[in-house]
Amino acid sequence: MTNTDYSAAMMTDMYEYTMLDAAMLDGTADRRCVFEVFTRHLPTGRRYGIAAGLGRIVDMLKDFRPSESDLKFLRDRHVVSEKTAKWLENFRFSGTIRAYREGEAFFANSPILQIEGTFAECTLLETLVLSVLNYDSAIASAASRMTSAAGDRPCMDMGGRRTNESAAVAAARAAIVGGFAGTANLAAAKKYDLVCIGTAAHAFTLLHDDERSAFVSQVNALGPGTTLLTDTYNIEQAITTAVEVAGPELGGIRIDSGDLASLAQQARKQLDSLGATNTKITVTNDLDEYALAALATAPVDSYGVGTMLVTGSGHPTCAMVYKLVEREGADGQMHPVAKKSFGKKTDGWRKRALRSYRYGLAQGELVVCGPQDQLADWQAPAEYGDTRDLLITAVDHGDIDESLASKEALLAARDYHRKALDELPVTALSLMNGEQAIPTEIITL
Amino acid sequence: MTNTDYSAAMMTDMYEYTMLDAAMLDGTADRRCVFEVFTRHLPTGRRYGIAAGLGRIVDMLKDFRPSESDLKFLRDRHVVSEKTAKWLENFRFSGTIRAYREGEAFFANSPILQIEGTFAECTLLETLVLSVLNYDSAIASAASRMTSAAGDRPCMDMGGRRTNESAAVAAARAAIVGGFAGTANLAAAKKYDLVCIGTAAHAFTLLHDDERSAFVSQVNALGPGTTLLTDTYNIEQAITTAVEVAGPELGGIRIDSGDLASLAQQARKQLDSLGATNTKITVTNDLDEYALAALATAPVDSYGVGTMLVTGSGHPTCAMVYKLVEREGADGQMHPVAKKSFGKKTDGWRKRALRSYRYGLAQGELVVCGPQDQLADWQAPAEYGDTRDLLITAVDHGDIDESLASKEALLAARDYHRKALDELPVTALSLMNGEQAIPTEIITL
Repeated sequence: MTNTDYSAAMMTDMYEYTMLDAAMLDGTADRRCVFEVFTRHLPTGRRYGIAAGLGRIVDMLKDFRPSESDLKFLRDRHVVSEKTAKWLENFRFSGTIRAYREGEAFFANSPILQIEGTFAECTLLETLVLSVLNYDSAIASAASRMTSAAGDRPCMDMGGRRTNESAAVAAARAAIVGGFAGTANLAAAKKYDLVCIGTAAHAFTLLHDDERSAFVSQVNALGPGTTLLTDTYNIEQAITTAVEVAGPELGGIRIDSGDLASLAQQARKQLDSLGATNTKITVTNDLDEYALAALATAPVDSYGVGTMLVTGSGHPTCAMVYKLVEREGADGQMHPVAKKSFGKKTDGWRKRALRSYRYGLAQGELVVCGPQDQLADWQAPAEYGDTRDLLITAVDHGDIDESLASKEALLAARDYHRKALDELPVTALSLMNGEQAIPTEIITL
Repeated sequence: MTNTDYSAAMMTDMYEYTMLDAAMLDGTADRRCVFEVFTRHLPTGRRYGIAAGLGRIVDMLKDFRPSESDLKFLRDRHVVSEKTAKWLENFRFSGTIRAYREGEAFFANSPILQIEGTFAECTLLETLVLSVLNYDSAIASAASRMTSAAGDRPCMDMGGRRTNESAAVAAARAAIVGGFAGTANLAAAKKYDLVCIGTAAHAFTLLHDDERSAFVSQVNALGPGTTLLTDTYNIEQAITTAVEVAGPELGGIRIDSGDLASLAQQARKQLDSLGATNTKITVTNDLDEYALAALATAPVDSYGVGTMLVTGSGHPTCAMVYKLVEREGADGQMHPVAKKSFGKKTDGWRKRALRSYRYGLAQGELVVCGPQDQLADWQAPAEYGDTRDLLITAVDHGDIDESLASKEALLAARDYHRKALDELPVTALSLMNGEQAIPTEIITL
């Protein structure tokens, strides 16, 4: 039977391999290249984006190599020649990757990831790197707006059922980067050691002969600290029953329909009158950042966010691209390269990215292009105030910083995200459509 | 070292397991249940949706069981009790699943999937079934609008880089259901034995000392039948060079920027003047169904569609839900159940779905609810014209119809999709916002 499984090295567009093959034949495959990932513009109206996915890239890079059956497929389909197939058998990425930290704010033209190596090894990574950064950053960006709107109230990911089953796992992780507190998704909780949360579905109430039986069952299994779902029939009656069953130490109730603000207000009054003053109220039901902002004055304790999180709240991709900006020529020297395509021009040379500050507040994103040695020496003129370099090294000449894929790194990214937002002008947190929070200035040396 | 891999049985919300556990303790886990998957409404303005994902569900169901390390995680986190963990060790879905065929049109309240079994086994499948159907059907629905707009011109999936890397593989498959001809994604091509296509990136041209060298290299590697990318610098010059290099038998050119209709028109004239009358023109660049419709009069031969395909062209999920509609009571009889949540009411009893026809044209979707025996006997009154039952059996008392996961089934789904569209009123193919193509009538016996 044919093996139809595939490795991460196949989660890519075919042309990466055919370009590799052609370059192997013509001798350009070994040319040193610098590619950069960036987006030409933030989604309409968005003030900033949040980078996410680097930890996943680093993790997949460890074994990024076509498997034996992948190679058989590539040979059988004549995607690559025998020479290239042989070369792929021992493939190991030996280049350097520098990138924005997970949790870092980014803007149009921010060089979110910079990869340096031979054309051969850089081109193979294009599709996968883009898939990860485009999706994960879209989710982290939406999550960031949601957690800002939610203030101190924790947001929980409950969106797995509304996106591809593997995307759901990545979304749960990216949501953490954007400030979420936990997820309902077990695979994500296991893979990334996340806080896992859950209440019950309406089906659980309907399964039982009456609501009381369902509540008794759940409290017996999970203790009175559990969260009971109260909107299957009549919320007021359900809350009365819930407190009767679990006592005033009932952990929480969930409301999943109707006018959540008014219902939470009523529920709070009712719970308090029943002595359940510590019982938390969690609400769910197609929440997005606008709904969360509107709930600010309602007595809600936490939010479950689903569809709008995993679909990027209207912007399910960041439209990032992976562009060659500099490469070795026949003379052995590095040369800037740029395409001239209408509306899609690129800037040659590698970039150095800095954020400038005054009194600790971000003023602008500086994207400086130039030859490597000049870039390293470049000092921002005093008029820019303080500056901070934004790119960190994730892979150094093939040496992968695996700590970036750790649980600690993920939680650090969430903290970093908070810090990055705090440094932006307050308008960054406005949910209204507007310009990006700080301007990007491209400086060519 | 902890095993952080996970099986398909973990790609689910935690509450499925905690509900299972509570039901195991209270004795309701074995109650016979019928759950149904449906959407409350099509995305705003859409005339129809296209079902996709059943083949993937069937495929994942074969081994749907928590692995040893999954069980360890569930025990360590106290998600389930020891009794439930033991039961899960030997889990095998033994119920029945009936569903709309892949490629079938669906509407609001169409019971796209119906699952019958014990509460225990049905609840475990909820999240995964929804993830697959919600994403795959969103992509197939968008693909269907695109292929309708493209007419006889083939559409190719090039969207992998703009969505999660695993979602990309599912999207390539779902696009086929919606009429696409192939994909750029190697993993999808390998897993589903699909036509795989590709041209070259701008980076390949920029890698070389000049455009001619890049074209020579590509033609040497892939033959003159290849497709050359012509918009890196100047399209007119690139086409001249391309035909000089490959000869008039050049397979194709790709244009990825600018006003695609005008550029294709100019390119066609130029190619013809150079004798390259059989050279195909393919265009790419954020195409959606509206752009494809606008290109109808331009001399384009095929389309590469990316972002808008894999993000569902504005609707990245179908918002399908999985609801308990009928279950065994303490009396051993089946009872209809329905929640009363504001704005989210459900209809009790299992459904039978039929499409009614006059002169071979679909007139309406009949969703009939009632006890199983009455449903089976129900005959549509003559006023409904001819009728056709829409649910097919995918799993019969645990016996999985694995043929639904085959390549043949996927291609059959694409054919079926064409047939299903041909039966709908022509307004179904309008890209303008409007009502669903045929009305859904809910009949309660």
